[in-house]
This record gives sequence, structure tokens and C-alpha cells, in this order.
Amino acid sequence: MAEPSAVVLLSGGMDSTTLLHAVCRTPGMERVYALSFAYGQKHSRELEMAAWQAKAAGVARHEIVDMAFFAGLTRGGSALTDPAIDVPALDTLTADQLQQPPTYVPNRNMILLSLAAAWTESLGAASVYYGAQAQDRYGYWDCTTEFVQRLNQVFSLNRGRGVTIRAPFAMMPKSDVVREGLQLGVDYAQTWSCYRGGTRPCGVCPTCVERQRAFAAAGVEDPLLKAENRNQESRNV
Amino acid sequence: MAEPSAVVLLSGGMDSTTLLHAVCRTPGMERVYALSFAYGQKHSRELEMAAWQAKAAGVARHEIVDMAFFAGLTRGGSALTDPAIDVPALDTLTADQLQQPPTYVPNRNMILLSLAAAWTESLGAASVYYGAQAQDRYGYWDCTTEFVQRLNQVFSLNRGRGVTIRAPFAMMPKSDVVREGLQLGVDYAQTWSCYRGGTRPCGVCPTCVERQRAFAAAGVEDPLLKAENRNQESRNV
Repeated sequence: MAEPSAVVLLSGGMDSTTLLHAVCRTPGMERVYALSFAYGQKHSRELEMAAWQAKAAGVARHEIVDMAFFAGLTRGGSALTDPAIDVPALDTLTADQLQQPPTYVPNRNMILLSLAAAWTESLGAASVYYGAQAQDRYGYWDCTTEFVQRLNQVFSLNRGRGVTIRAPFAMMPKSDVVREGLQLGVDYAQTWSCYRGGTRPCGVCPTCVERQRAFAAAGVEDPLLKAENRNQESRNV
Repeated sequence: MAEPSAVVLLSGGMDSTTLLHAVCRTPGMERVYALSFAYGQKHSRELEMAAWQAKAAGVARHEIVDMAFFAGLTRGGSALTDPAIDVPALDTLTADQLQQPPTYVPNRNMILLSLAAAWTESLGAASVYYGAQAQDRYGYWDCTTEFVQRLNQVFSLNRGRGVTIRAPFAMMPKSDVVREGLQLGVDYAQTWSCYRGGTRPCGVCPTCVERQRAFAAAGVEDPLLKAENRNQESRNV
């Protein structure tokens, strides 16, 4: 059955941006709502990208929720929100850290999905689209298909309008996400991945490495790096 | 095994207040953290009570998280947060409404528990105590033991410090909660239940009715009403 409306959790990274555009092009989809969070992430530049993409995709509404309190509540819990903890390079992570990297944010994804589900219920929609993506070398428990399935078992208890989390990329290699996005005409120059919060991607943090690999496997140059290099050259002239 | 620390979700109502004091008295418990939320509830007076109780119980820290955005995100979703929707009297609810009353707040409890779990993880503690309580005549899907069990199935996937939600009152009649609280010396004059946000309990909304019944079944007068009546009398003199 075609759904007339849905909510997409939009970080402004590659995966959720691709998902946003895919959902917006779904036949029968009339209204797409995008939801982003300022939770104290160092790489808040992703939120500018989220706003750009939401506009480009033509969503009915884009909400950026201010959850600044979150970094304080979880201080010491993550390299993504605590200025005192450095974001590591992927190749420095131990086997243990690959299971739960320092860039894991305590229970963030359940919180964001719970809030997305609340909005979805209030809008009378049925689905939350979640760009969780299976990584090659490292991962997070709250990006797995099992996590999504168990959350849906919780939501199935709702006696009113039930909400379902849908994570269509959870079992796809990131290079396939890129390929799908390129077919959809997604402008990846307007996405942000680097965890380190600089003005240019660092190239060595886990998400930079995964991004580079995905573009390499898809056989295309990352438009963000191309754009950044162009800017760099024009500054050097 | 005795746990040295835990987080208690504290609304400032009867159940979570009783739970807070019970957890603080648990043998071996060294540090209790209390967490409350300003999510746009009309009955924000409960938060003053939460602060009073947290201090009385001697918690290590009490956080009141400002989630003012939530009422906007779920506008139209609940009588508890939307000024345009009246909080009904319990005896006006239809059978359908008793399943999911207008005072149900879309997915609120999962959101608050998810945030509590994030704090618990960051603190290195293991348990979130949740004052969910089985009601007599009406109820909410997100106050059931099944809801708690399924949430714990989600949390069990965590590869790091796992968190468990504990809801020891979920299967207890509210009158037994009152009895336990009275034994613990809980001052129920410093708790707030009424959903309507007035200066005195309305006496007819679902939570007022349940509160009255619980005190009646426990065979004691509600100290809050006693205090309110005393104030009223002194004003009338």
C-alpha cells in the first residue's frame, strides 16, 4: 500500500541524504517530513547540509530540534560530543574499539528515533525512515537490522497509531548507497561526514575513510572533495 | 549483586517519587541520580515537587532537562501538552479512549527512558528505575511490563555498557505503592498528579481519580488534599 506521508531522520550525511531523496521519489508519497537534531555534535556543519538537502528534496517541513542539553548529559560518553575526547583515526582503533568506537554516542540513535516516532504519530503518518547503514570494518549496535527489528517490536505494542522504523540501507554496502544516490541526482557536495568538525574533511576519521572507500568502490570522485579542492586552488591563486 | 549507582526517572508524581525513595534506601546503593523533564506538560508544578523530593531523598544529582520543543513537535497529539485540547474527566472517557486516552503523550515514555539510558551509560551505571504503574480502569501501552521487557531486548544488543530498565511497580496496585511510600516516610503533600495544571487538584481528571482511589484503598487521607484544604481554610478565615 502506498503511504502518503512519512518522516525521514536526516543527519546531513551521505546515507540519510540519499534516503531522503529516495523516499521523496517513492510513488504515491505526497508529504515527506525531515527531522534533524543539534545534539552537540562537533560536526554541526552536517546540519547546514541537512537544511540544504531538505529544501532540494522539496520536503513538506524540516525540523531541526535543539537538543543542546544532550552533550552535557552524556559528557565523557563520546568523542563526537565531548571536546575533551579526540576523534580517533580509523586505523588507530583496537579490535575492542571497533566493536564500540569512541565515536559511539550513548543511545543517541534510540533517542532520535523515539522523537521521530513521536512526531510521526502526531502527524498521523506510519513510517520513520532511518539511514542506518552496514559498515565494512566497524560498527554500532544501534545501526543494525536487529536493533531496528527490536525497536519495531516495542512500537507494535502501541494501541493507537503504530509507527514502523524502516531502514532500507541497513544491509547495503555504502558504495551501493552512493550508486543509488547518483542515479537519483543527489548532490554529494552538499553532504557532510567528517566527525572532526573542521572546515575540510580530515580524511582519516572512521566516517571519512568509509566515505572515501564508498566513492572509490562506486568508481567516482567524491564531489565534496572536488569542491573543496577547487576552493583550495582558487584560494592559492 | 548490589548496584552502587542508578538513575531514577522522576516526574514528581506519586509513583516515581515513591520509587525514588525506595531506590535511595536500597542496601548497597551509594549514588542515585534523578532525571526529570520539562516537555511542555501543563502540570509543570510536578517539576517543583520533583526538585523537592530529589533534595529530600538526598540524590547525588538531579537534572531537569528542558525539552520545550517537544510540545511543538507533537502539537495536537496530547491533552497534556496542547493548550487547545482539554484534559477530560475520567468518567467521560469512552471504551476506546480508555485504551489510549487523550492524555497519552505520543511516545513520551520511550523518549524519556532513552534519554535516561544515555545518561546511565555515560555515568557507568547499569539501571534506570521507572515508576510505571498498572492502572485499574485505563492505561497506556508504554506503562506495561511488556513495553519494559521489549525495551530491554533492544538494550541487550548494546556491545558496551548495557542498561536495564527496572519497573518494580508495574504490576502493583497503586494503593500498594502508597502503602510502601508511607512506610518509607514519603511526604505525599510534596507530590503532584493532576493533569489540568491548576493550582489545586481538579479531582476528576484520570490521574486525580486514580490518586484518590489509591489513598482510599490504603485507608489514609491524601496529605496533598489535607494541605490544600488547610491553606484554603486559612485563606477563608
